[in-house]
Amino acid sequence: MEKTTLQVTGMSCNHCVAAVEGSVGKLNGVHSVEVILNNGTVLVDYDPSSVSINTIKEEIEDQGYDVVSSNS
Amino acid sequence: MEKTTLQVTGMSCNHCVAAVEGSVGKLNGVHSVEVILNNGTVLVDYDPSSVSINTIKEEIEDQGYDVVSSNS
Repeated sequence: MEKTTLQVTGMSCNHCVAAVEGSVGKLNGVHSVEVILNNGTVLVDYDPSSVSINTIKEEIEDQGYDVVSSNS
Repeated sequence: MEKTTLQVTGMSCNHCVAAVEGSVGKLNGVHSVEVILNNGTVLVDYDPSSVSINTIKEEIEDQGYDVVSSNS
């Protein structure tokens, strides 16, 4: 498992939290995902042999948000 | 039918629009509901003999938003 912290803009409410956590959490290889709404952070614990960080970023962007940076 | 304009705070994104339009729109006696996100306005066309303005307000508040004023 690997942990990454993504900075994401556009998440504004608990519906957004549910959209991101729900969609990223369904990806194969993602063990856990947590959104911290007040600072726009998404914490992801994932298996890099099963899912790429780019796939995770694309999933978030497909929900309508912008990934502005990551530590991976 | 009667039209009312409610001012609602806390709606921040299209998920919020869908939550309010979906829940209010399902009330018996509500003919149409439209959320204008950028100014926090909810326009409701309803039959006051079937549904009260208070029921409409409560439905919006049950979704987690505050109705701060109405013209009814």
